[in-house]
Amino acid sequence: MDLKQYAIQLAGEAQAAARRLAAVRGQAKIDWLRRCADALRDNVAALQDANHRDLERADEFGLTAAQVDRLRLTESRIASMADALHQVALLPDPVGEIIDSNVRPNGLLVTRVRVPLGVVFFIYESRPNVTVDAAALCVKSGNAVILRGGKEAFHSNQALYRLLKNQLEPCGLPEHAVQLVETTDRAAVGEFLRLKELIDVTIPRGGRSLIERVTREATMPVIKHFDGNCHVYVDADADLEMALRIVVNAKCQRPGVCNAAESLLVHAAVAERFLPRLADALTSRGVELRCCERSAPLCPGSKPATEDDFRTEYLDLILSVKVVDDLPSAIAHINEYGSHHTDAIVTQDWNAARTFTTEVDSSAVLVNASTRFNDGGEFGLGAEIGISTDKFHARGPCGLRELTSYKYVVHGDGQVRE
Amino acid sequence: MDLKQYAIQLAGEAQAAARRLAAVRGQAKIDWLRRCADALRDNVAALQDANHRDLERADEFGLTAAQVDRLRLTESRIASMADALHQVALLPDPVGEIIDSNVRPNGLLVTRVRVPLGVVFFIYESRPNVTVDAAALCVKSGNAVILRGGKEAFHSNQALYRLLKNQLEPCGLPEHAVQLVETTDRAAVGEFLRLKELIDVTIPRGGRSLIERVTREATMPVIKHFDGNCHVYVDADADLEMALRIVVNAKCQRPGVCNAAESLLVHAAVAERFLPRLADALTSRGVELRCCERSAPLCPGSKPATEDDFRTEYLDLILSVKVVDDLPSAIAHINEYGSHHTDAIVTQDWNAARTFTTEVDSSAVLVNASTRFNDGGEFGLGAEIGISTDKFHARGPCGLRELTSYKYVVHGDGQVRE
Repeated sequence: MDLKQYAIQLAGEAQAAARRLAAVRGQAKIDWLRRCADALRDNVAALQDANHRDLERADEFGLTAAQVDRLRLTESRIASMADALHQVALLPDPVGEIIDSNVRPNGLLVTRVRVPLGVVFFIYESRPNVTVDAAALCVKSGNAVILRGGKEAFHSNQALYRLLKNQLEPCGLPEHAVQLVETTDRAAVGEFLRLKELIDVTIPRGGRSLIERVTREATMPVIKHFDGNCHVYVDADADLEMALRIVVNAKCQRPGVCNAAESLLVHAAVAERFLPRLADALTSRGVELRCCERSAPLCPGSKPATEDDFRTEYLDLILSVKVVDDLPSAIAHINEYGSHHTDAIVTQDWNAARTFTTEVDSSAVLVNASTRFNDGGEFGLGAEIGISTDKFHARGPCGLRELTSYKYVVHGDGQVRE
Repeated sequence: MDLKQYAIQLAGEAQAAARRLAAVRGQAKIDWLRRCADALRDNVAALQDANHRDLERADEFGLTAAQVDRLRLTESRIASMADALHQVALLPDPVGEIIDSNVRPNGLLVTRVRVPLGVVFFIYESRPNVTVDAAALCVKSGNAVILRGGKEAFHSNQALYRLLKNQLEPCGLPEHAVQLVETTDRAAVGEFLRLKELIDVTIPRGGRSLIERVTREATMPVIKHFDGNCHVYVDADADLEMALRIVVNAKCQRPGVCNAAESLLVHAAVAERFLPRLADALTSRGVELRCCERSAPLCPGSKPATEDDFRTEYLDLILSVKVVDDLPSAIAHINEYGSHHTDAIVTQDWNAARTFTTEVDSSAVLVNASTRFNDGGEFGLGAEIGISTDKFHARGPCGLRELTSYKYVVHGDGQVRE
């Protein structure tokens, strides 16, 4: 296969599809999402057959038991995928929305109108449900999508892709609105990343090495999702009961995800009252504490923290702990050691909350709530294609709105410039 | 000079300044803008001395008479720069604005709060007033800026820069909020473009070769401003008096700028009535017409247009002219030959206007108004640092808002995720 020609052909077809898709009525997209949901429910056996071919090769790819579990398409997971499609169908169509407007003194009505970005190249790993979610969000926002899944899910993704693709034309949507890169050759990704004239944005979703490779090679904009080294800071004026609930939730509710807490900062004034109780609650849940010199004596069974610990996203039942003297020290530590992803303060002090939310430079800053809420669904975006750790274009959870651009549409009655 | 070390030092100082600048009160920025305006008016002679040193070398750089004129700092131009600073001072401060909010069923208040991007690297050519405008917009939006002007204006830019910089600390702003690259070595630009950890966005403003070089070398996001091959389409249902006014204005009011019209499309049904009158009006203003086969007989004194003409941004008193059979042909031509910058339709037909604004994929699409209005000031942004031909992050005129990002600030009272 000539990978360069293949990439140019797929991306060219996607661009042509995107131009048509930008102008279709929202109902056609709703019809497609619902037909896809029905098709998923109607094809459980066929999807499981394809999935079985991937599961058989899991050893070959050296997948862990957890990874094999995430790869598996059970009937209930297929039903969840169909539910997700119905959810996206219900979201307001972003295309054509008037974002804001401005009537000029000369009578010109200046509006900003939301439009699709164009062609999205989406590169992801592991879970096959991401295939369905990404296609749904891209098409609903008027974008054509080129999907590039992981080799571990190759057959599952192909089966899902055919099912999604087959519903496009019956709903009046362009047949190339959704495409799948049907080779596992890693060099293919490089060919797509060169096509800045045909692809408007690349979204990699996966490990750090994938995102670094894409950032290095891409000639078009990239929405990046780097580490989540998230903090909870327990202030001098915190409600310690609330702090306990929040830290336990942020660390334990789902430790393997980006918005789980990795580091705890505690104000010196409450460290003695708070840390022994917290250590008890966390160690009973299997969490290992890695403590600074001041917190260690207050956390029985803890290990000493190294400098590296405070920079680490564990994605595991481990928490680094540090006692700080005041709010500015907490903020400075977070801005220096954190990853600008998600950070929370627990406090009853209005000024402390205000200073923390103003000065902590992260995609989400929370007061008296768990870091686990930094999520497109929880923030009310409906769904997300990823969480951006960039500041450019989109920051934090990326839903339909973040997959769009805008144009100025100006209504006049003969105005000329003097 | 070790250019790499120099770039790292300047950008590092800018980043530290940006962190402080993000949290200052708006009044400090207003004070600074007004003090700079006063300082400009108080230092006319010194600025003109510096400018004189640049003007003396204009021949050496091979500047045209028009370029020398643009370089010259007259007393009235210095007063205009001071006025522009007062204008920016009056604009609402974008930093801290709550863009939107969402109360979740669990009681979380999710807000999106506008924040600065961080450090802006601004590369520009020629006119020294851009030094002042760019610094004003960047600081007002809470960003530190590294200015890199053209060698032709080196001394003028240095004098303006010292004046702007000297007002920072007296207003409580960080001294490195505004910096100037004080070498004309082109290799210095390359060193800055490598510093993606220190610089958040690069904005090149100048010719195509500059923008292409920056796009190729930059490791951070770039806001690009490519060609403006702008169209006016005169529809079958146009008010031809209005069409005449708009075409003449779009072509002649200031032919050397990006939002001037370069190409005219006329519906076949009105070509015979419209084109002879238009040709008369334009040729009497010194405009050369380059016509397709159908329009040529209707435009006395015109030249034949080549395929290339329809892709060309003349920036001069030249207009390509083409007769089209219908609205879809006009839209297809614009999307194919245009540069997605600014395009206008003249029509009294509501459906034609609606179809044109929906399907033409340009940063600004106007109905019954001159293309010359695609401008930050005219659109009500207050001022602009450039016009983006990208779809990502910012499209069209870039003012204060386009120099910002946002973060999610979430207010809770103990919420944890179930």
